Amino acid sequence: MDEIEIIRRYFSTGYPARGDVVLGVGDDGALTRLGDGEELVTVTDTLVAGTHFPPELAAEAVAHRALAANLSDLAAMGAAPRWFTLALALPVAESAWLEAFAAGLRQLAGRFDTALVGGDTVRGPLSVTITALGAVRAGQAIGRSGAASGDGIFLTGSSGDAGWTWQALAEGLELDADDPLHRRFMFPEPRVAEGIGLRGLATAAIDVSDGLHVDLGRLLAASGVGGEANIESLPLSAALTAQAGETRARELALTGGDDYELCFTVPADNEAPLLAVAAAWPCRVTRIGQVLSTPGMRWRQAGELLAPPAAGFRHF
Amino acid sequence: MDEIEIIRRYFSTGYPARGDVVLGVGDDGALTRLGDGEELVTVTDTLVAGTHFPPELAAEAVAHRALAANLSDLAAMGAAPRWFTLALALPVAESAWLEAFAAGLRQLAGRFDTALVGGDTVRGPLSVTITALGAVRAGQAIGRSGAASGDGIFLTGSSGDAGWTWQALAEGLELDADDPLHRRFMFPEPRVAEGIGLRGLATAAIDVSDGLHVDLGRLLAASGVGGEANIESLPLSAALTAQAGETRARELALTGGDDYELCFTVPADNEAPLLAVAAAWPCRVTRIGQVLSTPGMRWRQAGELLAPPAAGFRHF
Repeated sequence: MDEIEIIRRYFSTGYPARGDVVLGVGDDGALTRLGDGEELVTVTDTLVAGTHFPPELAAEAVAHRALAANLSDLAAMGAAPRWFTLALALPVAESAWLEAFAAGLRQLAGRFDTALVGGDTVRGPLSVTITALGAVRAGQAIGRSGAASGDGIFLTGSSGDAGWTWQALAEGLELDADDPLHRRFMFPEPRVAEGIGLRGLATAAIDVSDGLHVDLGRLLAASGVGGEANIESLPLSAALTAQAGETRARELALTGGDDYELCFTVPADNEAPLLAVAAAWPCRVTRIGQVLSTPGMRWRQAGELLAPPAAGFRHF
Repeated sequence: MDEIEIIRRYFSTGYPARGDVVLGVGDDGALTRLGDGEELVTVTDTLVAGTHFPPELAAEAVAHRALAANLSDLAAMGAAPRWFTLALALPVAESAWLEAFAAGLRQLAGRFDTALVGGDTVRGPLSVTITALGAVRAGQAIGRSGAASGDGIFLTGSSGDAGWTWQALAEGLELDADDPLHRRFMFPEPRVAEGIGLRGLATAAIDVSDGLHVDLGRLLAASGVGGEANIESLPLSAALTAQAGETRARELALTGGDDYELCFTVPADNEAPLLAVAAAWPCRVTRIGQVLSTPGMRWRQAGELLAPPAAGFRHF
């Protein structure tokens, strides 16, 4: 099976066809159209076997996670996903693996109407790089740098589930395919509609991929502010509390990566409109703390200041 | 050195700053603007150490080749380069290597005014995936599928030089850093201005990355036509003929990859305007053959039909 055959079999059909794609997979490049007054949002995420997922992870989950990580970055910008390219490095071209990988990719791309428009398939140690392209009306993108003292700090869903799984897998535990914590690691849900819903309401947003403490710290630093939160306000899933106990669950909620929740800041005047919008979301949204002018993110428990949690996911 | 520090040191400054970049490196995504009436062209190319280059290749050349391969794909579409993202997987974060890599990247990006707007730096076996974004006026992109019977087949520069080097390196030869064939492998020149110059003149274009016979075959197949050429008309560099002899040089010109020349088709009426435009190019342009309606690419020597050359670069 050569590259052309791989593209024909697995990466040509079954993906969303969009009217704004003039020329898709199969030429030197993809040709696409933005709407009038729209700006382009470009994000890139790489997953390497052994670094970001266990090499034996189901191919469907590898594909899902790679695309979800990118859709999550678009969501954190308030952008609507449009198109993506896939750079896939494979040690061998095995059809069962490729079949499952393509199924996972098609499924998530289909749900968010995101067209696969190009890419590269090469021989090499297993890794997946996706570049996703999205759009926002000019001026509506949500960056990291707009948070202001007095804003509330919010989080979608709950954090820590994927971090628990990553650690369990690293310790050699065998997890059920339908264990809810395992599923959150394998098939994270990008908060696409939620990110779009934040336009005009949030002053800053980031997606939690390296751990809540680290990522929220980045948002606050980019905005030149700080923040405080009570660790008791952190949303935890029932499955995580049951598996890890409350103390460990809270640690994981602060330091575990890969949950792909959105963490964002909202001025007081926008909190009621936000909660109205969020009533339609399939996930909960929690006000976990507030932005203050003193730099740094501080966590409290029963009012007492905690030592800063250990770092989240480190790429090196 | 963590990811943030790597980005700060090597991937934040010294790259072209463009007025159409609203938000560049450092947020969840990049925010950029296309001009009115422009379409977006997206290309992606991955280079894996051991597959596409020897692992010990100078870091400057690794960066140059990765960006050049993408700029070449944009050129083959007639697109003007604007922005790119970089996904870099590294086994270790070594500052001397990163310094040289960034220098190579900045140098080429600067020459073509292409802004680095984002990416991902991860731990893993050495590989580089670049996604480059370019623009064309709506309707002006050059695909692979417009070649028609009677068109002339043209090639920029000459082919085979990089293929000779790749083979020499695979055989363990030590090559001088300023050997012209070695330099063509390390620092290929993307034909950016040439590709833009082909707008309105060429009916189809492709860049020669996997070998002239294979890539021209793809263009002809996409256009539903075939072609013929005399192997005597192939442009060869003096350095290649001197090193490899004429017979081997011609084989390499047909099968060697990585030269990143443009191969394109031009209708008879456009040949004189093309030659007028090409007079300003720094590289030669050669009419190597013509498009015919019978499918397949056929090469002749002294009028006799040759057996089809062995395949070019195979990704698997």
